Amino acid sequence: MQLTAPPGRGPSTGPSVAEILESHAVGSASPTTTAARVADAIAEAGDDGTWLSLVPRDELIAAAAEIESRPSARTLPLYGVPFGVKDSIDVAGVPTTLSCPDYAYTATATAPAVQRLLDAGALYVGKTNLDQFATGLNGTRTPYTIPRSVFGDEMISGGSSSGSARAVALGQVPFAVATDTAGSGRVPAALNGVIGFKPSRGLISTVGLVPACRSLDCISIMAATVEDADRAFEVMAGRDDADPWSRDRGPRWSGAPIRVGLPPAAELEFFGDDAAAEAHMTFRASLVDTADIVEVSLAPFLAAGELLYQGPWVAERLVEFADFLSERPESIHPVVRDILRSGEKYTAVDAFAAMQRLAELRAEVGRLWDRMDVLVVPTIGTTFTVDEVLARPIECNTVLGHYTHFGNLLDLLGVAIPIGTTSDGRPAGVTVLSAARRDDTALQLAAEILDQSRAFRAVEDAS
Amino acid sequence: MQLTAPPGRGPSTGPSVAEILESHAVGSASPTTTAARVADAIAEAGDDGTWLSLVPRDELIAAAAEIESRPSARTLPLYGVPFGVKDSIDVAGVPTTLSCPDYAYTATATAPAVQRLLDAGALYVGKTNLDQFATGLNGTRTPYTIPRSVFGDEMISGGSSSGSARAVALGQVPFAVATDTAGSGRVPAALNGVIGFKPSRGLISTVGLVPACRSLDCISIMAATVEDADRAFEVMAGRDDADPWSRDRGPRWSGAPIRVGLPPAAELEFFGDDAAAEAHMTFRASLVDTADIVEVSLAPFLAAGELLYQGPWVAERLVEFADFLSERPESIHPVVRDILRSGEKYTAVDAFAAMQRLAELRAEVGRLWDRMDVLVVPTIGTTFTVDEVLARPIECNTVLGHYTHFGNLLDLLGVAIPIGTTSDGRPAGVTVLSAARRDDTALQLAAEILDQSRAFRAVEDAS
Repeated sequence: MQLTAPPGRGPSTGPSVAEILESHAVGSASPTTTAARVADAIAEAGDDGTWLSLVPRDELIAAAAEIESRPSARTLPLYGVPFGVKDSIDVAGVPTTLSCPDYAYTATATAPAVQRLLDAGALYVGKTNLDQFATGLNGTRTPYTIPRSVFGDEMISGGSSSGSARAVALGQVPFAVATDTAGSGRVPAALNGVIGFKPSRGLISTVGLVPACRSLDCISIMAATVEDADRAFEVMAGRDDADPWSRDRGPRWSGAPIRVGLPPAAELEFFGDDAAAEAHMTFRASLVDTADIVEVSLAPFLAAGELLYQGPWVAERLVEFADFLSERPESIHPVVRDILRSGEKYTAVDAFAAMQRLAELRAEVGRLWDRMDVLVVPTIGTTFTVDEVLARPIECNTVLGHYTHFGNLLDLLGVAIPIGTTSDGRPAGVTVLSAARRDDTALQLAAEILDQSRAFRAVEDAS
Repeated sequence: MQLTAPPGRGPSTGPSVAEILESHAVGSASPTTTAARVADAIAEAGDDGTWLSLVPRDELIAAAAEIESRPSARTLPLYGVPFGVKDSIDVAGVPTTLSCPDYAYTATATAPAVQRLLDAGALYVGKTNLDQFATGLNGTRTPYTIPRSVFGDEMISGGSSSGSARAVALGQVPFAVATDTAGSGRVPAALNGVIGFKPSRGLISTVGLVPACRSLDCISIMAATVEDADRAFEVMAGRDDADPWSRDRGPRWSGAPIRVGLPPAAELEFFGDDAAAEAHMTFRASLVDTADIVEVSLAPFLAAGELLYQGPWVAERLVEFADFLSERPESIHPVVRDILRSGEKYTAVDAFAAMQRLAELRAEVGRLWDRMDVLVVPTIGTTFTVDEVLARPIECNTVLGHYTHFGNLLDLLGVAIPIGTTSDGRPAGVTVLSAARRDDTALQLAAEILDQSRAFRAVEDAS
């Protein structure tokens, strides 16, 4: 395993939230100069499939000036910090496209999760690309420019939050709002070497998000550091009576040692990708040296994942999209259309039977948290090129969701983090999962892992 | 309102659990003499549709003798206390019929909830009648003798736990095990003037119960007093890893005043039954004098109830019964068969849409418990005769579930209690409902209401 990407590949280093706030505090930059810098960087990149719409440069600078003019502006927790928003989430006056031009509408209200960022002084930059209707984990299911991973070699960006991951990985914005229904907030993070934090469902309001599977949807965060993800999360989280799944945050990390669940190595699946396996096992070896490890079988987790991609939940997408599918089938991406249509074959009996089975698996997994605080697994088992995914769109997507599908059904949270690169220069990452409302504990372990990776990298660089 | 039933009608007074235990302790009776008394009383009643199978008299006495022979037998919490079990719950070696002879099988294991009673020294007497497949709230849907209410006049017994309610109302056993998926444990309690306690789902294991709607099913208790229901509950409640919905009991009643939610009178529906309305409003007037009242609209509760009887949950019954419906349709009661078939028309999209709507209603109702501790409503709005139900089986059943259907979907608990009789001698009752895991608080208020009714009755009797 290499811990750094080959030269010219992998995520770029943009300023972090803390660095931007510091620069605004000391006067080396201001919200308006930051706005100009971001607009220029995005313009320079050209249409690479990251953004679907942007606040025009002059309007962005005007918005930054408005932030500067607010009373006590400099004490706002995200004073002048630029961010992007996945284009399945409403921002008033801006089209919400879901990567489907014929579905698009101009939002009349801003999603509360985004409004909380704006109220905290953050600077809305634009809407980011996604797999259409947030249906996909690969990034290719868009009628706009298909984004690629920042690691190059025609590698997919991952999805569905493809643009949000790229915007952060390119250093254009320090964080971006994404979503996660089955891994959409974690897979693209892994493929672009950034943090993908899917909080416990219900901590961030999903009002103003066009539903994928409404009972599973979660607004998530892409960031370059765990600290930045946590800063955005602190602002975005909050009860919302208009979100029926809304709930309070759980207790903070107690400071107690974090018991780390790891599956038996024989249960891990890398789909023939020996370099990915090697990178992951090297990481595990270092983790075993430093953490309190508990061996935990993945079997009930994977069984829940199979329920998602082989079961009736695809029908939940039709609660939102059945009318559009019926009236405008030609407007839908062919792969997404076929997936949506597959939801029509399930009966209510199928749905109830699957939910009963899920209740069994939730109870089984629920008891495992008595033995461990977090579970650490690869975020993805292998990577794909755009051509590979276009040739086998369903099979590749299923492979990408192997370690993410179960998280939402089992009501877990997940923090996807980079751990370096494979020997052939592709991104390697893991996800720290935990039971709902233990977000703070999972973020803590994720930060510790990253600190150790950085320390290891520093030693490697010096040697 | 009359507070006592007309002479010769209504529930008979049998010995309570406390009285039986006391008689066994002082030697005025013993488990074997109690067994003989119970067997004789049941034999004397003849086939009135209460019991579907009975432990033969000699075996019952032998079982009582076995209890007597146990070490420390006299300290067992239910030493020699007889009880019945609804015939949808397994007792090893006994047929489980669900009131469908062609479905019946001989159970190889005893349901944990029943086993805990046996372990506590209780004496299993037999299996009680029910609406077939526990599908109905009226008691007429059985190929065996159709039971009547102990209030006579050809009044329905209510269902589906018809036999369990009658066995207690006749004073044959002090308590009986029942179930409640949409009101099956409360409606027959109301129609026979006994206590019907549906605990929070998950406190009593449902293992060994043939599912109706598995995600909603609850084992419940029929008893003549709240104290007896609580005694049985104390024994039956306990975590069971084999029940995916299993959970721990909530906190005990704190002793704080109990805030009682009452719907606006205009929202109450008695379906034209002026005597039932008069009885309920007289009760409410006395409750308002003594309790801390909060007005709470029933609208979100009733909306959830409509989801149950006009929505896809009927399809959940087919998870268990689809094969039997397909292979042996002629073996199923015609009304039950039609209901089961109605579940075939719902799609998975219907199921997910209804569950999303239910999530909204659960959240809305959830916030109401900040303002109140319990909600008190009529258990049933009116009564029916057997002929009325046979003539309009679906409509009458829907009326019977008006105040019960919502409880299970909203994850509430309920204690149905008698409050007296209407001016024309029919039973009147209310249900004390609360948020899940507040069982102790609801039982406390139910006991207080009954104590006040008794005190009022004593004054009335003396006057």
